[in-house]
Amino acid sequence: MELVECDYHIESILPIERAATALAAEQSTGTWTDISTKPSGVDKRLAARVLNIEGSVATIGFPVEIFEIENIPQFLATVAGNLFGLGAIKNVRLLDIRPPKSFVKEFRGPRFGIEGVRKIVGTKKDGRPHVGTIIKPKVGLDPKETAEVAYQAGMGGVDLIKDDETLTDQSFCPMDERLERVMEKMDLVKQETGRTVLYALNVTAGTEKLLERADSAVENGANMLMIDVLTTGFSALQSLTKDDSVKLPIHVHRTMHGAMTRNRRHGISMMPIAVLARLCGGDQLHTGTARGKMDSDLEEVKGLNDFLKKDWFGLKSVFPVASGGLHPGVVPSEVEAFGKNLVLQAGGGIHGHPDGTEAGARAMRQAVDATMDGISLEDYVQDHKELARALEKWGKQVEWGDLYG
Amino acid sequence: MELVECDYHIESILPIERAATALAAEQSTGTWTDISTKPSGVDKRLAARVLNIEGSVATIGFPVEIFEIENIPQFLATVAGNLFGLGAIKNVRLLDIRPPKSFVKEFRGPRFGIEGVRKIVGTKKDGRPHVGTIIKPKVGLDPKETAEVAYQAGMGGVDLIKDDETLTDQSFCPMDERLERVMEKMDLVKQETGRTVLYALNVTAGTEKLLERADSAVENGANMLMIDVLTTGFSALQSLTKDDSVKLPIHVHRTMHGAMTRNRRHGISMMPIAVLARLCGGDQLHTGTARGKMDSDLEEVKGLNDFLKKDWFGLKSVFPVASGGLHPGVVPSEVEAFGKNLVLQAGGGIHGHPDGTEAGARAMRQAVDATMDGISLEDYVQDHKELARALEKWGKQVEWGDLYG
Repeated sequence: MELVECDYHIESILPIERAATALAAEQSTGTWTDISTKPSGVDKRLAARVLNIEGSVATIGFPVEIFEIENIPQFLATVAGNLFGLGAIKNVRLLDIRPPKSFVKEFRGPRFGIEGVRKIVGTKKDGRPHVGTIIKPKVGLDPKETAEVAYQAGMGGVDLIKDDETLTDQSFCPMDERLERVMEKMDLVKQETGRTVLYALNVTAGTEKLLERADSAVENGANMLMIDVLTTGFSALQSLTKDDSVKLPIHVHRTMHGAMTRNRRHGISMMPIAVLARLCGGDQLHTGTARGKMDSDLEEVKGLNDFLKKDWFGLKSVFPVASGGLHPGVVPSEVEAFGKNLVLQAGGGIHGHPDGTEAGARAMRQAVDATMDGISLEDYVQDHKELARALEKWGKQVEWGDLYG
Repeated sequence: MELVECDYHIESILPIERAATALAAEQSTGTWTDISTKPSGVDKRLAARVLNIEGSVATIGFPVEIFEIENIPQFLATVAGNLFGLGAIKNVRLLDIRPPKSFVKEFRGPRFGIEGVRKIVGTKKDGRPHVGTIIKPKVGLDPKETAEVAYQAGMGGVDLIKDDETLTDQSFCPMDERLERVMEKMDLVKQETGRTVLYALNVTAGTEKLLERADSAVENGANMLMIDVLTTGFSALQSLTKDDSVKLPIHVHRTMHGAMTRNRRHGISMMPIAVLARLCGGDQLHTGTARGKMDSDLEEVKGLNDFLKKDWFGLKSVFPVASGGLHPGVVPSEVEAFGKNLVLQAGGGIHGHPDGTEAGARAMRQAVDATMDGISLEDYVQDHKELARALEKWGKQVEWGDLYG
């Protein structure tokens, strides 16, 4: 029988063996008391079972037959549902999920992946990290102002421009007009520099509206879409990436994840979220930066990025995105930690440059070029004044907003 | 300017005033560094502001203009987004959200509410608590077996039968056939007893599939639908309740909530979830039982149930559901805590009755009748053998699975 294996950190008033068994029962064929309605043979076919226990971590196997194919809400209800409220378990954290090949193969995964996105941008050959920016302020620019900021960022050399996670289709910046004006500017950047810059339009909404927005965006020349996967749901991502009228790469933001991921002893780790995002077809996913306060943060983000990039039953890779408090001074350490297949995203770290957005974008690209050429930023600033000015302002330090993303 | 007020519990390395200001900035017009792209006047119109601080709790006001009407994912990204990951804030918990009337009025809310559900079941006059059951085992019965268990529960006197939160449309129990067979039995119960029993079919899936399932369920005679609102998303609930071809009451399950709600110092409390569920149109919502381990649990559930039942800018009420480890012995304390406008839901507490499901359902109804008549269970068992047998097995104690739901 094929099993989906899930690892849980468990803290209980019961011995872990008993707590893990109770968890497996509650999430499959059991309840809190013996019942008269259980047919014989059910447990053998459908009961989840404890496969291994190591310290505080129990591995539980769920028979694939217990799942409805491609129904992520049902999947979450089973592996991440009521178990969090069990009275006898004080803390429980879903650490990892490992579905078997047959399960993974039911999903199409990313349409583009790292290769596909690099092909659009034209970085397949040099394989350098991409530089992205988030339009700032988060909210408050009108479409024309947004397009102007995007133009400066594009001319300065970014590969990707994205809406912030709270900007969708508010009256102060209507989505259709924003897309039209930004894409006009991106066309101008293409004419003037020959470079293609992606603009990830945040189409986040309920699934029906989201799909309408995606269709309309395709018609109006969008070259990338963005969704907030945790607030709108994995199924919305799945619907979007299965829609053959929307053949665009999808930038996946994880806003709200901290409500579940931040407590290291309870909730859901980022890895299961990354697994589901890859199954459902995200082409880019925020995973964090190298600058966490604990070693374990760095190891966790490395693990996430490695998972997104590795071969996985034929599904395409996902481009990891480092975001939150980034600026040119920290580029070398990010690339050292995660390698070149990385999107380095700076919002404040570009628009906060003393000489403005275009200079800020140049400084980020200069930091990437220096890193690719194996030259220290200290040496590189001699001939690169934008980088010099950025380092003067921000140095190479971590900012307090280091856990955003 | 109209504001959506949100209360946050905050623990920070910064003084709370500064932490709250940083949170308000991050979630509206600010970022971690000063930027060159902010137009004048933006902060005045769109910046969130700290309205009040009391102990560890900050109240932050978000201008309504910052939100896209009816876009719950965007709403969550704003009031419950990146803030959970801010490096300078160690723990932060969204405790409550209070939208103004103009905001609430954009939502239709529940179609039926407590009154509407009571009208279907025929309990408007006596106003007694409803008794519900969850088919057990959670998974593993085929459609015929499910219908047989439902028939026994219906004949025993329950008002509501629901699928478990992990049962959708798996191959061992196809949804269409399950619905057909259960509704045949419910018709039989109606013929034999004159009583209408609701069957909440769990249509949880991605929104598109969910809406298809709802339409098909209506055609096939369903009288209630159920969704797991946190795994599928509030927008799915919203789409379902706005669909005028699906005029059925909606039973809302909150599975996975413990990943966000359980840590009392971080994440999201149940109250914001209840507020969103009412806005989006749930007619019934799981809120917990009276038997938590701490007084604060009881007070919290009381607060939730009071919110669901109170007048709220013209939106209909929501029927609170107590579920998880319930059995006849605890009925009086539940009703004492929460009043009669309550669904008492017992799975194991009915199907685990020593004489089977029908006797278990009778015992629950007897406990409700005794409570309504002001008679103690100890006295009532003299003439009610099913109740007597239930008390022999379970007593009046709390079971360890007391925090399910």
